[in-house]
Amino acid sequence: MSVTEKFDGVAVTTKANVYFDGKCVSHSIVLADGTRKSVGVILPASLTFNTGAPEIMEGVGGNCRVRLKGESAWKTYGAGESFAVPGNSAFDIEVADEPYHYVCHFG
Amino acid sequence: MSVTEKFDGVAVTTKANVYFDGKCVSHSIVLADGTRKSVGVILPASLTFNTGAPEIMEGVGGNCRVRLKGESAWKTYGAGESFAVPGNSAFDIEVADEPYHYVCHFG
Repeated sequence: MSVTEKFDGVAVTTKANVYFDGKCVSHSIVLADGTRKSVGVILPASLTFNTGAPEIMEGVGGNCRVRLKGESAWKTYGAGESFAVPGNSAFDIEVADEPYHYVCHFG
Repeated sequence: MSVTEKFDGVAVTTKANVYFDGKCVSHSIVLADGTRKSVGVILPASLTFNTGAPEIMEGVGGNCRVRLKGESAWKTYGAGESFAVPGNSAFDIEVADEPYHYVCHFG
């Protein structure tokens, strides 16, 4: 499992996106080809995220447990692993002990 | 006071720097000319940071109160304002209510 350690040649927005009182913090980036992503971290917490656009969450550090909306099973994802979330949906995520670092790919 | 809203053509490290149990989260960037900076956010908290290299902290959102090591006075800095911290020194920073977003310039 390879881990995306960095993105080159991107535009980064200096102001962070702060969700859930800071339990999730991300910075938005735009790749040279115009693709938008975010790089972020979720601190130990149990959170529910709603999606607008479909998302692929790629782990780059730590791990998490995830339950997609409408499913009963939790699955664990670590660095180098990804999970896909449909648009206009939601997912529960639990992070314990160590922060979970991710890249969020949209669309 | 102008605010640096983004950096273009940078390399961004996907894994965040997490300090003080997540009260401070930053992502490291490298500009095209090799200059290293970080873009980060400090959540409401009272923290003490130690410096290795000298730093210039540029506010890009929210505000903070700062007291440099060896000084007795606190000063308030907001978006578009910067403060310089010597190398091998320290500063106390207090953030209330809203997160303080910054760019950290080194050296």
